[in-house]
Amino acid sequence: MKNWSVILFSSLTLLFTTSLRAQTPTQAQHAAFIRQVFDSALVQGQSWPMLEHLCKQIGHRLSGSENAHKAVLYTRSQMLKLGFDSVWLQPVMVPVWVRGPKEKAYLLQNKRTSGGLIQQQQINIEILALGGSVATPPGGLTAQVVEVADLEALRALPAGAANGKIVFINQAFDPRNIHTFESYGHCVGNRYNGAREAAAKGAVGVIVRSLTHRIDAYPHTGVMGYGDAQKRIPAAAISTLHAEQLSQMLRDKQEVKLFMEMHCESRPDTLSYNVVGQIHGRELRDEIIAVGGHLDSWDVGEGAHDDGVGCVHSIEALRLLKVNGYRPRRSLRAIMFMNEENGLRGGEEYARLAKELNEKHFAAIESDRGGFSPRQFNVEADSLVIVDMQKWLPLFEPYGVHSIKAGGSGADVGRLRGHAEALLGFVPDSQRYFDFHHAASDVLEAVNRRELELGSAAIAALIYLLDQ
Amino acid sequence: MKNWSVILFSSLTLLFTTSLRAQTPTQAQHAAFIRQVFDSALVQGQSWPMLEHLCKQIGHRLSGSENAHKAVLYTRSQMLKLGFDSVWLQPVMVPVWVRGPKEKAYLLQNKRTSGGLIQQQQINIEILALGGSVATPPGGLTAQVVEVADLEALRALPAGAANGKIVFINQAFDPRNIHTFESYGHCVGNRYNGAREAAAKGAVGVIVRSLTHRIDAYPHTGVMGYGDAQKRIPAAAISTLHAEQLSQMLRDKQEVKLFMEMHCESRPDTLSYNVVGQIHGRELRDEIIAVGGHLDSWDVGEGAHDDGVGCVHSIEALRLLKVNGYRPRRSLRAIMFMNEENGLRGGEEYARLAKELNEKHFAAIESDRGGFSPRQFNVEADSLVIVDMQKWLPLFEPYGVHSIKAGGSGADVGRLRGHAEALLGFVPDSQRYFDFHHAASDVLEAVNRRELELGSAAIAALIYLLDQ
Repeated sequence: MKNWSVILFSSLTLLFTTSLRAQTPTQAQHAAFIRQVFDSALVQGQSWPMLEHLCKQIGHRLSGSENAHKAVLYTRSQMLKLGFDSVWLQPVMVPVWVRGPKEKAYLLQNKRTSGGLIQQQQINIEILALGGSVATPPGGLTAQVVEVADLEALRALPAGAANGKIVFINQAFDPRNIHTFESYGHCVGNRYNGAREAAAKGAVGVIVRSLTHRIDAYPHTGVMGYGDAQKRIPAAAISTLHAEQLSQMLRDKQEVKLFMEMHCESRPDTLSYNVVGQIHGRELRDEIIAVGGHLDSWDVGEGAHDDGVGCVHSIEALRLLKVNGYRPRRSLRAIMFMNEENGLRGGEEYARLAKELNEKHFAAIESDRGGFSPRQFNVEADSLVIVDMQKWLPLFEPYGVHSIKAGGSGADVGRLRGHAEALLGFVPDSQRYFDFHHAASDVLEAVNRRELELGSAAIAALIYLLDQ
Repeated sequence: MKNWSVILFSSLTLLFTTSLRAQTPTQAQHAAFIRQVFDSALVQGQSWPMLEHLCKQIGHRLSGSENAHKAVLYTRSQMLKLGFDSVWLQPVMVPVWVRGPKEKAYLLQNKRTSGGLIQQQQINIEILALGGSVATPPGGLTAQVVEVADLEALRALPAGAANGKIVFINQAFDPRNIHTFESYGHCVGNRYNGAREAAAKGAVGVIVRSLTHRIDAYPHTGVMGYGDAQKRIPAAAISTLHAEQLSQMLRDKQEVKLFMEMHCESRPDTLSYNVVGQIHGRELRDEIIAVGGHLDSWDVGEGAHDDGVGCVHSIEALRLLKVNGYRPRRSLRAIMFMNEENGLRGGEEYARLAKELNEKHFAAIESDRGGFSPRQFNVEADSLVIVDMQKWLPLFEPYGVHSIKAGGSGADVGRLRGHAEALLGFVPDSQRYFDFHHAASDVLEAVNRRELELGSAAIAALIYLLDQ
C-alpha cells in the first residue's frame, strides 16, 4: 500500500482552511471533501488494525467478562491516542451470564440391526446455550423431542403434549425476504420466548433452530428471557445442519431422545462502562452528533461483525474527519455501548444521562449490521427531514450508498428516541450477516477489509453532511 | 428450506396463462412476475447445486484440459435435463497450456551472523507461472532481482540495468478506486506485457505482483503474451505478501537473488466447445436474447467466481423463466463460452458464427464479475436505449439493483459488438472479486449462496424485461 500513502496529505487540509470557514461550501466542495475522506480511509485507514486488535488481541467480549473490560480500556486508550478532545467512561451495571464448560448434546434413537436386535444409536450434535439460560440438572438431561414449526404451533399443542419433553422449535428463515433482517425479525421470538412458552406446556427443555439462512454446523446463540415464568427450563440453539437432521429423523416417525448438558449460570450484576470520545464543536459545542456501536459481543467467535465493526466504524469515522482537517461545527461523539446483547444497559444509561444532563442530540447514528459494503442509511426523523437528506444521495452514489430512507436506527441509539432530531442506522449489504451472527464463525477473517473501510468512510461522510 | 418449497408453485404459472398473452402487461404485473422469479430462485433455486457440481465434482477447467471437457458435457446434459428446446456444441480449437509440476521459488540473501560470518539465507516464496509462459531452464533459474514500480519505470531503465536479471514489477492496486475493476485495469498490462518489456531490457525472467488489493500468500495467475518478441523469458505472479517482503529487502539495500523453477509448456491447439442452450421464442424466434459466462477457468482453485458463477447464472436465469411459466417472445440462449481466459476463442467463434448465420441478437448479457450481491447492469447501446432501460429501475430496486448505465459488457459477448442491439454486463458488488480472482482461493466456499441466487434472479428479470 506504500505507493499511495504519500500522495494524499499535501492536499488534505487545504480545502477547509481556505473555503469552508468563510462561506457555505458548494456541492462540489462537499464532493471533494467526501472523496478525500474515502481516499484516506482506503489508503491509510485504521479500521482494519483496530478491528484486528479487538478480535485477535482481545477476542469475544460478553458483558462483565475480562475481555469486555479489556475492550473498554483499549477503545478508551485508542481514542485518547487519536487526540480526541475528551474521552470518558460512563459506569453502568451489567448482567453477568457465564457459559461454563462447552455444552454437550447428542440424539438417541433405536435402530434395529440386520440381525433384528434393537440398538441405541447416539448422534452428536452442536448446540449453544442461549444467553440467560439456566443450566441443565447436573449430569445433563435426557428427554423425548417434540418438534413444532414456530411459537404459534407451540401454543397450539394440546395440553400435556410436551409434558416432560424437550421442545424443538424448527422455524427456518424465509429465504424470500431480500433483506435478511426481515427473516431474523420473524424468527427471533422463538429464541427469546421459546423457553417460557415451552415451559408453560410442561416441557423440560427447549432447543431452537439457529437464526440463519445458512445450513452448517455452527449454532448461533443470542439472548432469551424467562419473563415472570416460575419454571425456568434450559434453552439452547441447535445448528441448522443438525436441526435438519433431527427434523428428518422425526419425519421418519422415529422416537428421538435428546441428551443435553449445559453449565451456564447467571451471576450478580457487575460494573462496566460505556466508552465515549468527543471532538468538540467549534460553533455549536452543545449540539451533539453521535455515532456508536456496541463493545460487548457474544462469548463465541470474536464479535467481529457483531459489533466490533460498529465500534471501529465509530472511532474511525471521527478520526477520518479529524485527519482530513475538518473542524466540526457541532460536537462529534463516538460511543462504544456496553451490553447491547443481553440487557441494553449501556444504551439505556447513555440515554438516561443525556436526558438528565439535557444534552442536545442533533443526530445519533448506529452501526450494528456488520462490516459489509455500504448500501443505505435508515433514518428515524420527520419525513421532510428525510426528504432533505435524500438530496445528499448524489454525493453518496459514487461510493455505493444509493438510498436514504425511513427505517430503524438501532437498539442502542434507539434509546434516544424522542430526544434526538434524527436517529440513523448504517445499512450495509445484508446477505452474509446471519452467516456469522452470534456464532463461532464471527471472526476477523469473515470481514473484508475494503468493505469495512468503505463503511467507516460512508459514516464519516454522513456525519460531515449532518454537521453542515 | 423445506418449509418454503410448497407455497410457490400453485400461483406461479397463473400470471402468464391469464394476462400476458392477451395484452401488454402493466408495471404491476411485471413487478409480480419478477417477485415470483426471485422467490423461486431463493426457495428452490438450482444455482448452488450447479455451482457445487462445477467446483467440487469437476474443479478447475483450463481450456483443453480433461476438466474443461467434463464441464462441457455437464452443462450440456444439465440444459437438456432442464428441458431447454435445443442444446448444441460449437466446436472451437483452443490453445493448450500446461503448468506441469508446482513451481518452486525462493529468495537468497547474504546475512552476516553474530560471529561475523556471511551466510546465505533462503526464503521460500509463493509464485504461479503466468498462463502462456515458457518454463525456466531445466533445474531452474537464479538471478539478481531488480524492482520497478510499473511498466513505464521498466521502459525507463537505463540500457543494461536489467541485463541477466529478473525484473520484479511491483505495482500495487490503487485502493482509492471504489470499483476494483478500475484498479485491475491499471495493473493488468504488467501481467500481460511484463515479460516482453523485461526481455527487451535484457532480463532473464519476470515476476509480477499479484493483481489484488489483498495482502496474502496466494499468487494470482492470468494470461500473458510475448507478442512477436524473439526472446521468451519465464513469467510468474508473486503473492502480494511476498512482493511486500521482497520489496522491503530491496529497500534495505540488500542484493537479493531469486531462484525460480517452472515446468509449464504450450502444446498444440485442441478441439473444445462452446455449449449453447436455447428456449425458442414464440413470436420472434429468430431474434435472440443471449446470456453467457465462460466455462473455462484458470488451473488453480475451482473457478468458482471466475466464472463458474457466470455459467450458473446463465443456465439458471433461463430455468427460472421456464419454471415460472414464462413463454418468451424471442429465443433465449444460455452460452457457456470456452477459452475466455487465455484466447477468447469461444467468444470469437460464437460471434463469427452469429454473423455467418446472420443471427439477430436483440441483446447479449455477460456475467463474468463474480457471484456477489447484484448492484448494476452495464449497457453498451444507444443512449436513448439506455434511458429507456432505466425506466425499469423501480422494478429492480427492491432487489438491490439500483443502477443501469453505460458501461462495458464483457469480453465474450463483446465480440458481438456491432452485431447486437444491446450488450449488457451484470455488475455485482466488486469489493471481494480480486481477493479470489485467478487464485487457489477461488473456490465454492468463497461464494455466498444467497448472493449467487440473487444474481441469477436479477439476470432472469433483465431477460424478461428485455423480451417484453
